[in-house]
Amino acid sequence: MTKPLILNHARLFPSERVSRGICERLYDSVKSLPIISPHGHTDPRWFAENEAFANPTELLLTPDHYVLRMLYSQGVSLQSLGVAPRDGSEYQRDPRKVWKTFAEYYYLFRGTPSRLWLDYVFKHVFGIDVKLDKNTADHYYDTIDSALKTDAFKPRALFDQFNIELISTTESPLDDLRHHRNIAQSDWSGRVISAFRPDPVVDPEFEGFRENITALSSLTNEHCQHFNSYLAALVNRRAYFKSTGVTSTDHGHPTAATANLSASEAETLYQKVLNGQFTVNEAELFRAQMLTEMAKMSIDDGLVMQLHPGSFRNHNSSLFTGFGRDKGADIPLQTEYVNALKPLLDKFGNDPKLTLIVFTLDESAYSRELAPLAGHYPALKLGPSWWFHDSPEGMRRFREQITETAGFYNTVGFNDDTRAFLSIPARHDVARRMDCHFLSTLVAEHRLDEDEAFELAHDLSYRLAKQAYKL
Amino acid sequence: MTKPLILNHARLFPSERVSRGICERLYDSVKSLPIISPHGHTDPRWFAENEAFANPTELLLTPDHYVLRMLYSQGVSLQSLGVAPRDGSEYQRDPRKVWKTFAEYYYLFRGTPSRLWLDYVFKHVFGIDVKLDKNTADHYYDTIDSALKTDAFKPRALFDQFNIELISTTESPLDDLRHHRNIAQSDWSGRVISAFRPDPVVDPEFEGFRENITALSSLTNEHCQHFNSYLAALVNRRAYFKSTGVTSTDHGHPTAATANLSASEAETLYQKVLNGQFTVNEAELFRAQMLTEMAKMSIDDGLVMQLHPGSFRNHNSSLFTGFGRDKGADIPLQTEYVNALKPLLDKFGNDPKLTLIVFTLDESAYSRELAPLAGHYPALKLGPSWWFHDSPEGMRRFREQITETAGFYNTVGFNDDTRAFLSIPARHDVARRMDCHFLSTLVAEHRLDEDEAFELAHDLSYRLAKQAYKL
Amino acid sequence: MTKPLILNHARLFPSERVSRGICERLYDSVKSLPIISPHGHTDPRWFAENEAFANPTELLLTPDHYVLRMLYSQGVSLQSLGVAPRDGSEYQRDPRKVWKTFAEYYYLFRGTPSRLWLDYVFKHVFGIDVKLDKNTADHYYDTIDSALKTDAFKPRALFDQFNIELISTTESPLDDLRHHRNIAQSDWSGRVISAFRPDPVVDPEFEGFRENITALSSLTNEHCQHFNSYLAALVNRRAYFKSTGVTSTDHGHPTAATANLSASEAETLYQKVLNGQFTVNEAELFRAQMLTEMAKMSIDDGLVMQLHPGSFRNHNSSLFTGFGRDKGADIPLQTEYVNALKPLLDKFGNDPKLTLIVFTLDESAYSRELAPLAGHYPALKLGPSWWFHDSPEGMRRFREQITETAGFYNTVGFNDDTRAFLSIPARHDVARRMDCHFLSTLVAEHRLDEDEAFELAHDLSYRLAKQAYKL
Repeated sequence: MTKPLILNHARLFPSERVSRGICERLYDSVKSLPIISPHGHTDPRWFAENEAFANPTELLLTPDHYVLRMLYSQGVSLQSLGVAPRDGSEYQRDPRKVWKTFAEYYYLFRGTPSRLWLDYVFKHVFGIDVKLDKNTADHYYDTIDSALKTDAFKPRALFDQFNIELISTTESPLDDLRHHRNIAQSDWSGRVISAFRPDPVVDPEFEGFRENITALSSLTNEHCQHFNSYLAALVNRRAYFKSTGVTSTDHGHPTAATANLSASEAETLYQKVLNGQFTVNEAELFRAQMLTEMAKMSIDDGLVMQLHPGSFRNHNSSLFTGFGRDKGADIPLQTEYVNALKPLLDKFGNDPKLTLIVFTLDESAYSRELAPLAGHYPALKLGPSWWFHDSPEGMRRFREQITETAGFYNTVGFNDDTRAFLSIPARHDVARRMDCHFLSTLVAEHRLDEDEAFELAHDLSYRLAKQAYKL
Repeated sequence: MTKPLILNHARLFPSERVSRGICERLYDSVKSLPIISPHGHTDPRWFAENEAFANPTELLLTPDHYVLRMLYSQGVSLQSLGVAPRDGSEYQRDPRKVWKTFAEYYYLFRGTPSRLWLDYVFKHVFGIDVKLDKNTADHYYDTIDSALKTDAFKPRALFDQFNIELISTTESPLDDLRHHRNIAQSDWSGRVISAFRPDPVVDPEFEGFRENITALSSLTNEHCQHFNSYLAALVNRRAYFKSTGVTSTDHGHPTAATANLSASEAETLYQKVLNGQFTVNEAELFRAQMLTEMAKMSIDDGLVMQLHPGSFRNHNSSLFTGFGRDKGADIPLQTEYVNALKPLLDKFGNDPKLTLIVFTLDESAYSRELAPLAGHYPALKLGPSWWFHDSPEGMRRFREQITETAGFYNTVGFNDDTRAFLSIPARHDVARRMDCHFLSTLVAEHRLDEDEAFELAHDLSYRLAKQAYKL
Repeated sequence: MTKPLILNHARLFPSERVSRGICERLYDSVKSLPIISPHGHTDPRWFAENEAFANPTELLLTPDHYVLRMLYSQGVSLQSLGVAPRDGSEYQRDPRKVWKTFAEYYYLFRGTPSRLWLDYVFKHVFGIDVKLDKNTADHYYDTIDSALKTDAFKPRALFDQFNIELISTTESPLDDLRHHRNIAQSDWSGRVISAFRPDPVVDPEFEGFRENITALSSLTNEHCQHFNSYLAALVNRRAYFKSTGVTSTDHGHPTAATANLSASEAETLYQKVLNGQFTVNEAELFRAQMLTEMAKMSIDDGLVMQLHPGSFRNHNSSLFTGFGRDKGADIPLQTEYVNALKPLLDKFGNDPKLTLIVFTLDESAYSRELAPLAGHYPALKLGPSWWFHDSPEGMRRFREQITETAGFYNTVGFNDDTRAFLSIPARHDVARRMDCHFLSTLVAEHRLDEDEAFELAHDLSYRLAKQAYKL
């Protein structure tokens, strides 16, 4: 017996009558606004080449680390989910069988944002009206697979249908941005830009760091034998990125540490990392110094700076050995901001030409450190609730713990931060609903006037992202 | 003038009409399920000997550290509460006078879970229908005292009346489990098992550690002069515990640190602790190593492992000196899990034969560390909100901060973790009500379908505890 | 087009019908109680000299670091807000122009407590009935400015109109309390007392510490060359403060560290700080030791002790250099209490003659450390949610995370802790509303009986502050 798949129009709204009424009015005013996606990890090749997606499993499951991690945590092997082991050993290659495994365990996602996003995709993108379980797995597979073979489900058509005004991908400074250039030169009007993510060339512990510096040198005609030449090479690549329409950089560091070394200290440290002769602390110091250097470059070239600290990457050693990165074994760490950011803020925190958008995986920092910092420094803004906290309760905690000290206008709207392209409308919809939920509670408790709530709903859904990211 | 004692049928339910309706339906479906109590501290002697409890004060007050701590914090001396000083000096020996002091200060418990539990006991177990205050203190004392003298209030009768399907106590490896054996051999059908709590023989800082090792040696015919013999002794006692029906171990460490030493490092360390020649750091490292050793044994013998870290025991030095342990002076500490658990998880975290149930007293770790870890590692599950957080708001925070990342199925149902036997039904009732409260909010906000909420209510109230603890 | 300024009578109340009804009844019972303001930073000169306030800007904006920080964070310069740079350079001296800038950016305060407080002042104190924006800026300025020139808006008249029963200011031990003495000797009945804030003479890193010791010596006829003489000087000043009606001390340390040195260790350390030859750690240790010394003095003289730790003062170096202290660049730090307070608590934590009221800027300590500590130690009480958390959501988190472990009676009512005199009624009103909100939710969910909630509402609004501060 199948069960109907119903997306109630009032989902995520307060159940209390007064605030629900306000919430519905607010949401109605923003639900159709175009999507601004200023930070994410979709593949620009999709939009450049506009090939059909392969099948439901490759599109919706295998690349989604939220889905993989939950299934894995309950004893479902990655092999059975179609993930190829590095050693070439067996794994499930039949995407339909993988899909059936997923369907069988779909109940695990109850109460999670993955369930909200996926149900939205099933219903609104593919028009399915029964719930996913093992009985409906084939029906789902067939329906989605057929759709994907049609033109309406090719990347550009979906981009247009999703009402995306702009999407940003994320690339290494070594990337030639060929896909972005191809998109720009095509007759398609979709706006797909990159973001400058220098981790491969500023983190001495990044795999292949020294080779990356060599490649950076080749690309820029800078010898990179001294720190100044290396900085010049980075300025060069930033300029190249910017010339393609890029407006932001992104920094994925283990901590929020920044530093402010003298020129000679920086040179000495650079020589160590360049020669691969450095300690763990020196690697950390180099990354810290590079954040401050990047802030300086941002003041010069206007690129908005994003800092995503606090993830212990690839925590599961044997999984990393067996399957590689991004299989759901990244775990948040306690993250300190007040002392960590001070060197950078001492130097550039009062400069209105800098926009530094800070994220966190440590929610205890919201009210204690981040809201007070962003509620003071002109250069600092707060990114939305991130990654594990990109969920109804996570968004609620973000607004409840940030707003009273930092206000709404030191935040920057929503980021979907995803490689799961089809989930983008669902994610923005959750964010808009939860922002309207929060605003409606303020209005219902007479902490905010309704006319101001309407203005805020529009700001949070659309305007602040465009403004903060200079789009 | 007495005041009526009323337990509203909808207590702890949402006050909003829609969610309250859903909550009532959910609760109705689980309120009569048998109680599974897979972790706690009741005295097996009660059930083995089935003697009447002595009086209201000794049963309900003196052993309850939640009650003692609150009264003490407001200047009520432990002596006046019937707690005997170690130095033999005076204290209140008349249980009725102690009860009257308690009654006089009962208003201090407003808004606390102790009040919820005690009122439930007064009303549902003893049938009292006026509120406790100094005017009703004698009435309370007489009513309870009379009841306790009847067969219906003997331990086994209460166990049966409480609809307890199984209860677990906690014993040292040095315990002979005679009470458990007597219960098993009796004609009473109540199921009372132990849990293997090795702190006295794995924590070098435990009082009498070296004597405990000697006792362990005697019990097992292992000389325990080398690490391997010591490990064999532990395996031996685990096997003995398991042979009586035990399914779990329990570990009460100051931190969550685990280690993965080589055999020779472990041997060297063991010699130090055995000789009492160790530093604070070496004691910590030994405990850390022993968690990993215990995980290995669990994989072999199937015992489920519980880790309860993060309590600063006996924080109040003079109280400890004057009255001994467990007088309410244990205070939670900040607790780190991501780095601490890594050595153990690196070795055994992917092994489906291991179940490691982790608890915390540091709620900031819920969304930051514990949900991401449990939402990834197959071996890891999360215990319910613990000790200070075993309360309506604590349970709400647990679900709100855990569910979106770890889901419901990486949690293990409720633990009452109590030595207050009479409060067990009240505690499970609070847990069921709060789980239904959380689920009803999800349903009312259309984040979960009602049919799934019914299934989850049953899982959280009953099934997950049985499954996780292999009962 | 102006917009009406409406303060709904039910603001901050729950929107759900049942709890709102309870909340209204509770609030009605406490809304007119006199204000007890046991800790704050108003200027005693106002009440001693009773001069009219200068103008709207100097009264309401320039001294309010909450307002300055938010405006500054959005790129509004301190100069344009009328703050004089230390170097004598230009700034906006026209208070009306500053007011217009403020009005233009008033939308930034949406969702913040500043907005709640200011709207209350505009409506209830000045009778303005349109919202503040750039169109109404002149109307606001004129209305407030005219009012301030009348007798009804002089400090003493406002004090009486605000129904303040007592207010405490905060002074250095070096202060002669002349204003307090003048007030006491005047024919005005308003009760204005000080609090003893010894930071300038107990913190070796305080600006002018050594000069302060010299001044302390002169005031007390103690040579202060040895620790005992220094302690005697402090006892002397405490006695002087107490003779003017003072009942409390206040300690603003970077951490909650306490120490318990031997007499000779303390003497050695004192010599170092007296000679300015000390390390950062020695400065910390001296402050830590002085908390324990102050606790001892409190046991002797009965002054209630307040500890306000965990603020990184003047985080923004260039702002501090350019404009000085208290410009909104203080940022909370993670704060540990369990180990930090142990030396003091070991010595005096069980002494009912000591009242130590602890505050925090690190909300993660509420349920983990502070509620368990205050719910055990007789000497310890918890101050209300402080500074950045002195807001509706902050107050809600405080009650939700504190009450279940510490109860209501280990808290001490509300502190406004403000130098913004006109906002005092607004702040107490927010606190009373939020306490009634919390209580009404407990009643609506049948976790508390309504008659007890009425008693608690009175306790939290009035009685506990008087009792805890011995007023």
